[in-house]
Amino acid sequence: MKHVTMEFLDEGLNLIDQRKLPGEVTYFRARDYRDVKLAISDMVVRGAPAIGATAAYGVYLAALEYSSEPREDFIPSVKEACDELASARPTAVNLTWAIDRMKDLLDDNADKPVDDILDIVLARAEEIAAEDVKINREMARHGNEIVPAGAQVLTHCNTGALATVGYGTALGVIREAHNSGKGIHVYADETRPRLQGARLTAFELVEEEIPATLIADSVAGTLIRDNKVDLVLVGADRVAANGDTANKIGTYGLSELCAVHGVPFYVVAPTSTIDYNIDSGEEIEIEERPPEEVVEINGARIAPEGIAVYNPAFDVSPAENITGVVTERGIARSPLRESLAEFKE
Amino acid sequence: MKHVTMEFLDEGLNLIDQRKLPGEVTYFRARDYRDVKLAISDMVVRGAPAIGATAAYGVYLAALEYSSEPREDFIPSVKEACDELASARPTAVNLTWAIDRMKDLLDDNADKPVDDILDIVLARAEEIAAEDVKINREMARHGNEIVPAGAQVLTHCNTGALATVGYGTALGVIREAHNSGKGIHVYADETRPRLQGARLTAFELVEEEIPATLIADSVAGTLIRDNKVDLVLVGADRVAANGDTANKIGTYGLSELCAVHGVPFYVVAPTSTIDYNIDSGEEIEIEERPPEEVVEINGARIAPEGIAVYNPAFDVSPAENITGVVTERGIARSPLRESLAEFKE
Repeated sequence: MKHVTMEFLDEGLNLIDQRKLPGEVTYFRARDYRDVKLAISDMVVRGAPAIGATAAYGVYLAALEYSSEPREDFIPSVKEACDELASARPTAVNLTWAIDRMKDLLDDNADKPVDDILDIVLARAEEIAAEDVKINREMARHGNEIVPAGAQVLTHCNTGALATVGYGTALGVIREAHNSGKGIHVYADETRPRLQGARLTAFELVEEEIPATLIADSVAGTLIRDNKVDLVLVGADRVAANGDTANKIGTYGLSELCAVHGVPFYVVAPTSTIDYNIDSGEEIEIEERPPEEVVEINGARIAPEGIAVYNPAFDVSPAENITGVVTERGIARSPLRESLAEFKE
Repeated sequence: MKHVTMEFLDEGLNLIDQRKLPGEVTYFRARDYRDVKLAISDMVVRGAPAIGATAAYGVYLAALEYSSEPREDFIPSVKEACDELASARPTAVNLTWAIDRMKDLLDDNADKPVDDILDIVLARAEEIAAEDVKINREMARHGNEIVPAGAQVLTHCNTGALATVGYGTALGVIREAHNSGKGIHVYADETRPRLQGARLTAFELVEEEIPATLIADSVAGTLIRDNKVDLVLVGADRVAANGDTANKIGTYGLSELCAVHGVPFYVVAPTSTIDYNIDSGEEIEIEERPPEEVVEINGARIAPEGIAVYNPAFDVSPAENITGVVTERGIARSPLRESLAEFKE
């Protein structure tokens, strides 16, 4: 990627504005944690790992803001801001994961001088961001093992450099396979309603010169049936202990079609996406987003006034449809509950 | 429907311009058969039954145009125009069906005076159009039998009054079930890339005050899995002798998800959509449409330059996924080859 997803500079977080890509490459500047929350909820930045790192920087901005408050209010105020940031989007567990790490850090260092705490908090945010790139590269290395030479790979939504701090999860594996000279070709689902596939994945694929074809989401089924897809790679917003995986709406249907036709279906996600606290996908809260995402495109209305809309952002693919989960620690394979448990810290 | 799909008036065919709905209700006037061909290929008018009737009027406009030619050139010229009209779109068999009926009519009456032939041709076009409405009402009556009270019905693309001369196929059944007081609710797939569900089906549902919810195509899978859909009703562009059915891209995936979850999946189509000349869906030519349909919405580009696009307009649902085919002569049920054969004239 020639562009960076996020950059912390001069006490503010610059985020490439993903709402405007690929038409415009502009940056959104988050000057305080409220801006960060808005950036996450309005999807200036999206993708589970990117959201996690963004939120960590948001905690630092909150700490900076409250550093001039009376000392006894400092930690409670920052922790309140943490809770607000955590509520920006409900499904991606990386958000809670990053916030929880920051809250633990605040607790562990509560008695230190405020300036020291600020340094520690910023260092941790930068560590989370740097770690994400490293983790992505590890996932890509493991994931590349399962990509056959010349493979036709189908992917859904955007799981690339833009969905992470850098490199990508599922798209990171694709990038690695391409760079290792395997001669792969990618089918990218456009991914309605937000069109992350058409806008972001296609943008990254064109930029990296990876051979790729964009399709409407509905085309995937007939490609899978006609043996034109060797492998499906998707990201994840939350993986339950049993392997059930919440990911962008439409992923479930793909997983089912792969199961019917015996096409390998892999989830690529860092272990921070695994939520060992929930037993199965039934417990995952699915975010419902505004109807405008469906009835308006680029501000122009496409559907009549008066029609109701149901717009869930995610669905859950059952563990039995998932061939494996590629993490930075290796590939968890069926039975997923047991193999995922091995990756628990 | 408060608006009519087509109306033949003052030696021209007025077609509601479905490219502009629901934002603008305007009419496209086809003054000759070339305009009719354009209207079909550019999807001013779409939907297999509507295309058939439109083409029949196109043959009359060709006859009118060539009626001043030397007598010996008249029939051959009109038949050439027939072939041109038939080539406007390849998948919907109703187009060929209507054109073939018109060609037979020309042959049968070739020796009559030109003015008589004109009268006969216009009468047949009007008969095909009138017949379509009658057939739709018959299908709706048969189809209503399979709709349970309070059913959650999912449909794909537009199969309503706009896809036909009036009333509709799958949406005709929905209309009938609603009008008979069954208290149904409809999920309408938006149907990318042309958004016939969002633009046309939602428009008809709102106009008729049928309780309905618009969804992105990718949402259907999770609804079916979660037992929120009791019945799927779709139209067809061509049904092979064995029951394999070509319909709008995305239909195949729905049929497979219904098969997996035991949800009844019905095709609603007049017998003119059944192509007894082809044994299975493998022989159906699938139209590939321009990439602009995917990468542009309302003229605005949504994907980066340089990305390839695959844009098939249809896919094929295998007979084994189809619970039944609702026709004007009754419902063909599995085994479809045998039951469809009974409807052959």
